[in-house]
Amino acid sequence: MLKDHLCGELTANNVGEKVTLAGWVHRRRDHGNLIFIDVRDRSGIVQVVFNPENAREAHHAAEALRSEFVIRLTGKAMPRPEGTENKKMPTGAVEILAETLEILNESKTPPFYVNEEVEVDESLRLKFRYLDIRRERMRDNIILRHKVVTFMRQYLNDRGFLEIETPILLKSTPEGARDYLVPSRLYPGKFYALAQSPQQLKQLLMVAGVEKYYQIARCFRDEDLRADRQMEFTQLDLEMSFVDEDDMMQLLEGLFSSLVETVTPGKTFRKPFPRLSFHDIMDRYGCDKPDLRFGMELADISDIVAGCGFGVFSNTVARGGVVKAISAPGCGAYNKSQIEELIELSKKLGAAGLVPIALGGEGVELGQLSMDKVKSVAAKYLTLDQVKAIASRTGAGAGDLILVVAGERERTNAVLGQLRNELGARLNLADPNELAFAFVVDFPLFTWNEEDNRWQATHHPFTAPRPEDMPLLIEQPGKVHGRHYDLVLNGYEIAGGSIRIHQPELQRQVFRILGHSEERIQTLFGQLLDAFEYGAPPHGGVAPGIDRVVAILAGEPTIREVIAFPKNQAGLDLLFGSPSEVTQTQIDAVHISVKLPE
Amino acid sequence: MLKDHLCGELTANNVGEKVTLAGWVHRRRDHGNLIFIDVRDRSGIVQVVFNPENAREAHHAAEALRSEFVIRLTGKAMPRPEGTENKKMPTGAVEILAETLEILNESKTPPFYVNEEVEVDESLRLKFRYLDIRRERMRDNIILRHKVVTFMRQYLNDRGFLEIETPILLKSTPEGARDYLVPSRLYPGKFYALAQSPQQLKQLLMVAGVEKYYQIARCFRDEDLRADRQMEFTQLDLEMSFVDEDDMMQLLEGLFSSLVETVTPGKTFRKPFPRLSFHDIMDRYGCDKPDLRFGMELADISDIVAGCGFGVFSNTVARGGVVKAISAPGCGAYNKSQIEELIELSKKLGAAGLVPIALGGEGVELGQLSMDKVKSVAAKYLTLDQVKAIASRTGAGAGDLILVVAGERERTNAVLGQLRNELGARLNLADPNELAFAFVVDFPLFTWNEEDNRWQATHHPFTAPRPEDMPLLIEQPGKVHGRHYDLVLNGYEIAGGSIRIHQPELQRQVFRILGHSEERIQTLFGQLLDAFEYGAPPHGGVAPGIDRVVAILAGEPTIREVIAFPKNQAGLDLLFGSPSEVTQTQIDAVHISVKLPE
Repeated sequence: MLKDHLCGELTANNVGEKVTLAGWVHRRRDHGNLIFIDVRDRSGIVQVVFNPENAREAHHAAEALRSEFVIRLTGKAMPRPEGTENKKMPTGAVEILAETLEILNESKTPPFYVNEEVEVDESLRLKFRYLDIRRERMRDNIILRHKVVTFMRQYLNDRGFLEIETPILLKSTPEGARDYLVPSRLYPGKFYALAQSPQQLKQLLMVAGVEKYYQIARCFRDEDLRADRQMEFTQLDLEMSFVDEDDMMQLLEGLFSSLVETVTPGKTFRKPFPRLSFHDIMDRYGCDKPDLRFGMELADISDIVAGCGFGVFSNTVARGGVVKAISAPGCGAYNKSQIEELIELSKKLGAAGLVPIALGGEGVELGQLSMDKVKSVAAKYLTLDQVKAIASRTGAGAGDLILVVAGERERTNAVLGQLRNELGARLNLADPNELAFAFVVDFPLFTWNEEDNRWQATHHPFTAPRPEDMPLLIEQPGKVHGRHYDLVLNGYEIAGGSIRIHQPELQRQVFRILGHSEERIQTLFGQLLDAFEYGAPPHGGVAPGIDRVVAILAGEPTIREVIAFPKNQAGLDLLFGSPSEVTQTQIDAVHISVKLPE
Repeated sequence: MLKDHLCGELTANNVGEKVTLAGWVHRRRDHGNLIFIDVRDRSGIVQVVFNPENAREAHHAAEALRSEFVIRLTGKAMPRPEGTENKKMPTGAVEILAETLEILNESKTPPFYVNEEVEVDESLRLKFRYLDIRRERMRDNIILRHKVVTFMRQYLNDRGFLEIETPILLKSTPEGARDYLVPSRLYPGKFYALAQSPQQLKQLLMVAGVEKYYQIARCFRDEDLRADRQMEFTQLDLEMSFVDEDDMMQLLEGLFSSLVETVTPGKTFRKPFPRLSFHDIMDRYGCDKPDLRFGMELADISDIVAGCGFGVFSNTVARGGVVKAISAPGCGAYNKSQIEELIELSKKLGAAGLVPIALGGEGVELGQLSMDKVKSVAAKYLTLDQVKAIASRTGAGAGDLILVVAGERERTNAVLGQLRNELGARLNLADPNELAFAFVVDFPLFTWNEEDNRWQATHHPFTAPRPEDMPLLIEQPGKVHGRHYDLVLNGYEIAGGSIRIHQPELQRQVFRILGHSEERIQTLFGQLLDAFEYGAPPHGGVAPGIDRVVAILAGEPTIREVIAFPKNQAGLDLLFGSPSEVTQTQIDAVHISVKLPE
């Protein structure tokens, strides 16, 4: 090795040692005759002093050093002169008195600072990703990701899981998300598809008697781009035999709580993870992946306002709708334009309107509230007792702003759920240090697709129905619950899982309910159904998304920050510049021709 | 969990315990009233007894059991009656007296035996892979593969390596092997390519200051099919900064020797791994990945036969060619048709001919050899002393068959090298228990491509030239040695590695020698060359092939045996039946049209 010590690991214990270091020029400062170079390698930074009286040649060579030059040096570890120690640096008690210096490579001036955590345009960061990764934040994210997958593997290995690789080039099954197609050269006119997930393969592994399988699996979906979606992503793909929902949730709770304790020990979380019913959280939070780090629950106030005479409320209730509200803490003094903005936002989210009720007089006890402190278009229709009841139910106090939406239940939940998320973010209600895990259960197995006028699988068609709901399957599929368990964390679904169907006839039945013809069932899923005829064990699984989990643990807003070489929001690789035109020879080899759209 | 014990782990220590098991019916035997079921799960097999006097209901249910049914049962672990213990089974001292039985799933009669290690047609095994994996051999291979990658990761993690994922969808660079193309839907007329290896990405990670990187990486090459090549394969991709060849070879030797000691402790190997020069092994073994488990080295006998008068020999030497020989032990009594077959084989391999010299009289000392025991068309041109000299140099004794090839050096080496491999296999010369690792070094950096009349990179264009050969680079590129180190094992190259170029100007120079225009250099490698301008450290790496390593450790002849879901020799997935036709909608979405070849 060209070095025998790591820069970031030098401490007072090394004083007196002769060391050989290699790394990058992080920062240079000149003080009179002396040249101070902060030398950086992956482990951290140490200060090196070039003193012409100590080493004339090395000092002369050091005069040429610029930021990001690659150097190798020898020197002696010395205590820093009294008063010059840097307590903020792990190596701040020592400095290296250089003896020799070798410049291994030079560097142009970088397009942005590597040695400062300044805001840099993301496209520049992606174009120069190799420089971005030298910065502390990205380096730490990449190390964290390594620790996360290392921990997950170890945890599962210790519990008898086998890591098994499954193929990425598969048969195209035009089902679910859009496939990436790969034209076959050897079979002209035919295509492979890139695996969207190892779902069927891992179920086949259960049929194969593997019992406990996992894989850190790369998956591919040609979906339309969103701000935070990559064309390829990574999941911890996992499947077990002879288990029920409880076994799987226990495994996940153990895995994730141990993970956090090990890789981000400063984070707080609650254990056991709450298990919440889908219908319950839709009512309380208006979405199936609520951020549970703050309250602001949706309160149903229909009964309070049913007869109040304010048409928006009472007519809605009369029509079978609901009136629900949340309280925005400390927003009671919002001015007219702030209020207007919230109303506009609600309309954008799909509400007919929003009725704010501002409770003035911050600091006043709710009991002392008087109607003159209540500002709302609905105020004149409400008694003080009604306002107090609404306040009590939403958890509002004086100084808060109650936001009321009236309408059909699902839409009202959805609007208030999104308002809740938006206000939670604006008001910084969530503790950034908290990890609020929860399981969501009791999902319906099927969801009615209004557009296509047919049932669709709430998660995917392999999920087993609850045994006690089996009698409803044919006649009332909408009432059947699935054996799902989703794991949510801070407003994200980080894992979707379920106990699967393992009986071929039941699986066919579910495909039929989803509207597939017998022929299509055999074409798309024949390999799995055939396998189920040969002794398929009961089994279940889950697939936590690695990118998202790491991003949350790292406190990063987007998954791009935890991927070494991501594509940008438009799906472009700014470093490699893909996708690219290919040669006619390449196109001819796979027997396709390119049709440019008009 | 539906079980509280694993079948294969029950021993005399469990006697008296009540156990719940779940698994597959491995074998059923009926003895009078008693039904004996061998129950199998991933851990192994245990015998369960259904006795109607003990549990009438369970016994009745057991009557329905057939091979590969999935069952769950409770029972009590009992010592087997004296004289019925099975010492061959780990669980052979106990049996489970069943109390309850539940049939979790039924099974059709499998198309081949799961409970016997019989030869089954491979296409049937691939079509029913989920049954094949239930068999002991495939289960053990899959467990071995898990152990291999687990060990490799642990070994590298312990040494400060970071596991980093790199993208699979990249820019197409029509260079090296053929790319798999992926049409882009969002960028009509453009394509991604599936990564052939993370080569440039891992070098960028070194520029990024990662210093120690690895990844168990999936790679894709659209190459023509061979018996033992998959369209996608897995390599341990690894790169380090601030290292030289010696550091890398030490790392590999440590990794592979510890790996073998841990996962296949019964195997033998020699340490330190020999380091062999490319030119030397081409001369001694006729190939760059010799199987070193047996000798049969190529002996140059040109000097002995130069003046013998046998035209094939003497004329070849006179023309500047070589006469070389190997000795096939114990083949001295081959009959005419066996000899003819070897001559035909040599011709197929590219030799002008083959001259066998059979030494008769097995058991006779070489010193007692007489010419009447020597059978060869060349015999009458050779003196006894010459024959003895040839025998001595090839290591032949009485009873052996010396095979002589005359011709141009490289072709002669190649022919004898292949003959050596063929005879080594036919004569079972290699100890199946031995792992003969060796490093091959001193490769030339460039190899002349006769066909295209240009230099090509012996390995790949990123390999650094030896510093001492730098003065030859422009004028005599053929004389420059590269800083490669290949690791060979039992006749396979299991890892190719090198110290890389890290200076942009030198890298450009190498691309120019390879005949690339400046424009092409920028298009194909611009991202790497640009990165090298910003402080690229010296670095090197290696990429052992996981599939091959596991196959060798498992003692399997093909890599398909150590891949859970491989494609067959024709690149077809017999389980999923890919590649497939796709819908017109899918084709339209990616703006391509399919051209069926005439």
